[in-house]
Amino acid sequence: MGFEQAWLTYTGKEAYRDIEGIRRIYVNPEGDIIGNAAAELQNAIAVFAGKKPEICALLERKRTDAKEEIESICLIKKEGFASEGYSVREDGGSVVVEASDENGILYGVFALIFRMQREESLKGMAFAKAPVMPLRMLNHWDNMDGSIERGYSGRSFFFDNNEILVDERTAAYARLAASVGINGVVINNVNVKDQATYMITDKYFGKLKRMSEIFALYGIRFFMSLNYAAPVELGELQSADPLDPEVRDWWKDRMKTVYEAIPLLGGFLIKADSEGRPGPFTYGRNHAEGANMLAEAIEPYGGIIIWRCFVYNCRQDWRDRKTDRARSGYDNFMELDGQFCENVILQIKNGPMDFQVREPVHPLFGGLERTNQMLEVQIAQEYTGQQRHICYLIPWFKQILEFRTYVRDTEDTVADIVSGRTFGQKNCGMAAVANTGNDENWTGHDLAAANLYGFGRLAFDPSLSPEEIAREWIRLTYGRDKQVEETILFMLMESWPAYEKYTSPLGIGWMVNPGVHYGPNVDGYEYDRWGTYHRADHLGIGVDRSHEGTGYALLYREPHASVYDDMEKCPEELLLFFHHVPYTWKLKSGKTVIQHIYDTHFEGAETVDEMARRFEALEGKLPDKVFERVRMRLSHQREHAREWRDQINAYFYRKSGIPDEKGREIF
Amino acid sequence: MGFEQAWLTYTGKEAYRDIEGIRRIYVNPEGDIIGNAAAELQNAIAVFAGKKPEICALLERKRTDAKEEIESICLIKKEGFASEGYSVREDGGSVVVEASDENGILYGVFALIFRMQREESLKGMAFAKAPVMPLRMLNHWDNMDGSIERGYSGRSFFFDNNEILVDERTAAYARLAASVGINGVVINNVNVKDQATYMITDKYFGKLKRMSEIFALYGIRFFMSLNYAAPVELGELQSADPLDPEVRDWWKDRMKTVYEAIPLLGGFLIKADSEGRPGPFTYGRNHAEGANMLAEAIEPYGGIIIWRCFVYNCRQDWRDRKTDRARSGYDNFMELDGQFCENVILQIKNGPMDFQVREPVHPLFGGLERTNQMLEVQIAQEYTGQQRHICYLIPWFKQILEFRTYVRDTEDTVADIVSGRTFGQKNCGMAAVANTGNDENWTGHDLAAANLYGFGRLAFDPSLSPEEIAREWIRLTYGRDKQVEETILFMLMESWPAYEKYTSPLGIGWMVNPGVHYGPNVDGYEYDRWGTYHRADHLGIGVDRSHEGTGYALLYREPHASVYDDMEKCPEELLLFFHHVPYTWKLKSGKTVIQHIYDTHFEGAETVDEMARRFEALEGKLPDKVFERVRMRLSHQREHAREWRDQINAYFYRKSGIPDEKGREIF
Repeated sequence: MGFEQAWLTYTGKEAYRDIEGIRRIYVNPEGDIIGNAAAELQNAIAVFAGKKPEICALLERKRTDAKEEIESICLIKKEGFASEGYSVREDGGSVVVEASDENGILYGVFALIFRMQREESLKGMAFAKAPVMPLRMLNHWDNMDGSIERGYSGRSFFFDNNEILVDERTAAYARLAASVGINGVVINNVNVKDQATYMITDKYFGKLKRMSEIFALYGIRFFMSLNYAAPVELGELQSADPLDPEVRDWWKDRMKTVYEAIPLLGGFLIKADSEGRPGPFTYGRNHAEGANMLAEAIEPYGGIIIWRCFVYNCRQDWRDRKTDRARSGYDNFMELDGQFCENVILQIKNGPMDFQVREPVHPLFGGLERTNQMLEVQIAQEYTGQQRHICYLIPWFKQILEFRTYVRDTEDTVADIVSGRTFGQKNCGMAAVANTGNDENWTGHDLAAANLYGFGRLAFDPSLSPEEIAREWIRLTYGRDKQVEETILFMLMESWPAYEKYTSPLGIGWMVNPGVHYGPNVDGYEYDRWGTYHRADHLGIGVDRSHEGTGYALLYREPHASVYDDMEKCPEELLLFFHHVPYTWKLKSGKTVIQHIYDTHFEGAETVDEMARRFEALEGKLPDKVFERVRMRLSHQREHAREWRDQINAYFYRKSGIPDEKGREIF
Repeated sequence: MGFEQAWLTYTGKEAYRDIEGIRRIYVNPEGDIIGNAAAELQNAIAVFAGKKPEICALLERKRTDAKEEIESICLIKKEGFASEGYSVREDGGSVVVEASDENGILYGVFALIFRMQREESLKGMAFAKAPVMPLRMLNHWDNMDGSIERGYSGRSFFFDNNEILVDERTAAYARLAASVGINGVVINNVNVKDQATYMITDKYFGKLKRMSEIFALYGIRFFMSLNYAAPVELGELQSADPLDPEVRDWWKDRMKTVYEAIPLLGGFLIKADSEGRPGPFTYGRNHAEGANMLAEAIEPYGGIIIWRCFVYNCRQDWRDRKTDRARSGYDNFMELDGQFCENVILQIKNGPMDFQVREPVHPLFGGLERTNQMLEVQIAQEYTGQQRHICYLIPWFKQILEFRTYVRDTEDTVADIVSGRTFGQKNCGMAAVANTGNDENWTGHDLAAANLYGFGRLAFDPSLSPEEIAREWIRLTYGRDKQVEETILFMLMESWPAYEKYTSPLGIGWMVNPGVHYGPNVDGYEYDRWGTYHRADHLGIGVDRSHEGTGYALLYREPHASVYDDMEKCPEELLLFFHHVPYTWKLKSGKTVIQHIYDTHFEGAETVDEMARRFEALEGKLPDKVFERVRMRLSHQREHAREWRDQINAYFYRKSGIPDEKGREIF
């Protein structure tokens, strides 16, 4: 087939008694998704137990005497469950999956399959779950020419050569996404250019409709990214001014046409006035005016507009110390709070900069109170090793979700806000920039699949721990071998802290090669136009964002504002983000900043050595192909971690003149 | 026509009496080049005087009474002149151009036309010239897809879309080159890849032959770059081992085929074992073995092999302070001195690194004594502003040519060596990497044409001063307005010193953005694999190439070796190239190194301001199009010179902590 099935690679089990007797899968009522779920179950059991149960319509479920053996599974849609929630229980020889909607059934079925796959007992089990976030989305940055912006796993499986691909991989992808609860997918890059602008014209409707239908079988709503300047770029109008009646009418007509052709369309994702993309600013309008125009045009069809807040001046002068890119999202959008239509969601990156290995949480979370909000994270490892380094990001996302904003006394975390608990919102959730491509294993690095899996699971249930999620994924993917589980768990759990250690000290970020964002380059963004500076000199390093600097720290609610504003109290992992600090500043560990830089860089690289060492022992315990792929990448990661260590340490040693206390070699 | 004629844009003159009476151009004997020269003269006179003289065969030149008016011009080929040399004199109403070969006639004719163009008197004139260097070549780095490696003037006019272009621009180019004495042109990039490998197959012979014939009309020998691994890459052999008889036979056959198809071919230029290109090292052979194999194959046809010495390890570890890229050319080629065939020329870049704004002269000059040598310079401004900055390079080339190598007591300069005077060689000369493209004005920046013009003139006659050459070019191109001449002369003459000042201090080089080589980036190549480091720390900067460092200084003959080796004696413009020096080191000016860095960076940027100020006054005195093109580029150059100034100064201030004595703003 040219591609693998990741954690859905069902493999036959020996003597897994609990499912051997299952002969029938009952379905009630019949339906597309429920039928698809039943087929998924049938297929899984056929693999696990070697025989295929029959799928039947369930006329009436009779209570019979409790049986020792499980003989059937019933998929039943009925009232009484939370949206997309499900209950799974074993009851007298039958496993019953119940939900109020078909997505709930599908998720219940995958939960059941996962249990089977992990060979956990089914007898007497009873569990119920409902997704915490209404929207759990993947954003693909795939271009119509088949390239992927920030893609590290081959080329697009949605597009090639300006054509849309609908093939066996489309369903395989949807299945993978649905298995972890993804219910929305944006298939194309937010930078909508060239041919992609034509996705809202009849040039591409046929294939898009087919794709949306395949997604729907897996409970996934189909979204596209939109070119804000489409009326102009399609050559139909002279303007894209959101207050121009002609423009507004154009969009209404256009949306009518689009929805007639693709009725299952969920809506659009829009990057406007950002990094060279067109937007309402071109016409002296604000983002609420821009978004609402589209929202009104799409409203009759139940569509939503997801509007990105990644707006900043990307032509800054590095000499200017007053302008602060970190402030820009807040400064652009806070004053619009309450002005957006109900079917608009603002999609806010986790931090104010851009997916660095460490950033403070975006101050719009806790700022906005009357606006639908969605959290955007990036599982594509743009700044975190590009799927050549292991960097399991779920612990990082977990911290972000648990961040208290203090916008309320309770239920005020980021997770609360984007789940709708804080403000009672329905159009909200979490999106990840996807890390997939047409590589055989989907994610380039085999271990990067844990981020894809983990993102879905965490959006579904933010109460899960990163370690639980990692263990689930390892068992599903590589089976029950204890050494495999513990080794890969170690590698995953240590990977983000290690990456942070050998790359970017104390929250400063951006010490990467410009453009590619891979590999060390301390001054790479220091004298550039992107608003990304470390301001290191011979005495110290860091950006003063306190009240004496750019004032960014004060954008947070108390107690954050006072804590971030104070060099003594500021969390040390963000110290250099908020303050310009002397190299000789003493951290709580008793170490100076410069010694901390040296130590963490040596430690981070050592952790990678240790990962590689432990991984070697798995030879023969993993499929050869997987082992070799991971080994090769680990070998690069080791060498590259040393390169990071040596460049960063050399840079700061040469600049500060302060030697390493431990006398290690610094070049 | 889509392109201009640069300094050959003959424009009508008012009342230039000396040529008004010219009615006939006599030619003897008839010949292709001589005929072409006569036509060129006819055309020029038609423009200057408004009437076209007739071209006739000269049967016998009769002495008549001296006439007041000049009535004819005679082009006469006869024995007694140096190769390609000519004499031009007015004699009794006739201007006589004499030479022993047709190239001499052509050069004499252009010299005469230039005199007319500058409206200098013809009556009683008498001058004679012969080119000093046997080979005066342009190397084009044009790719068959139409792109130009390090091209800043549009795309190729030799190739497009893997086809060879032969059109009116081919002749226009040859004419321009011939007018300044160029007698050899390599049309394709030394990095021979993809389709260019097929230039020695019948796929392209037809057009190549036509191009070689057009070049020949202008006395230019046609050369190509060659892929050393052609036998393998064309799929005909498994090896390109120069000692393998099968490989040697393959090349003999191939050269026979090539010369049958393109008899006017001068030979080949080869980049081997360099920056990823294949070469004899692949087979454990040395460069003499590689070059000689090709030389023997081409020898029957009078062809020559020009073999580049740009060989170094481009996968160096920045942590390694022992390996020195500067040594590599010397270390690779010195031991082969005397082993190359007579029809092999080693082409040696002016310096040991790569066309930086300042480098010492390559130590192979003065090292090699029994090997044909050619000097390679670059008028494509790869590291010197990419034809967006003005950088008139002739003063720099002049210094290089005048450098005494001490290989002999007299006639030991680089100019002497590559002219053949030092060792009595015939296969030698000077090549420039060309700065042309299909831009309307040929060179992107109008003023960059002075480098094209100047290179040809300097190779023809290294005794010319850069200022003389600049004045010639200005008058030919922009006429006789004094203000125009003095302003542009100022801009040209100040441009290289200014560029050096605001970019790279004291010979250190390489502070550019990697890859593109444009714009400041002090650490851009510091932690990279290219062998290009400045080793700056908080106390000082520079590379120790003395006997205590890499020993590079000792590769020169005395007294250079002792001078370069000694920090006290080393020429200051090369101080940081040879030594690691404290920022507080006192220069002869009394300034510290750091203060020198600050001062020169401010001065350099101020010079550009002054250029722009003076240039403004030329509005109306230059063609509008030219004025606007230059103004636009000057405006960019001003801004970019400040960017250079501020980044470099900020970098060193932040690193050293030493403030500017003059208290100017450093960021």
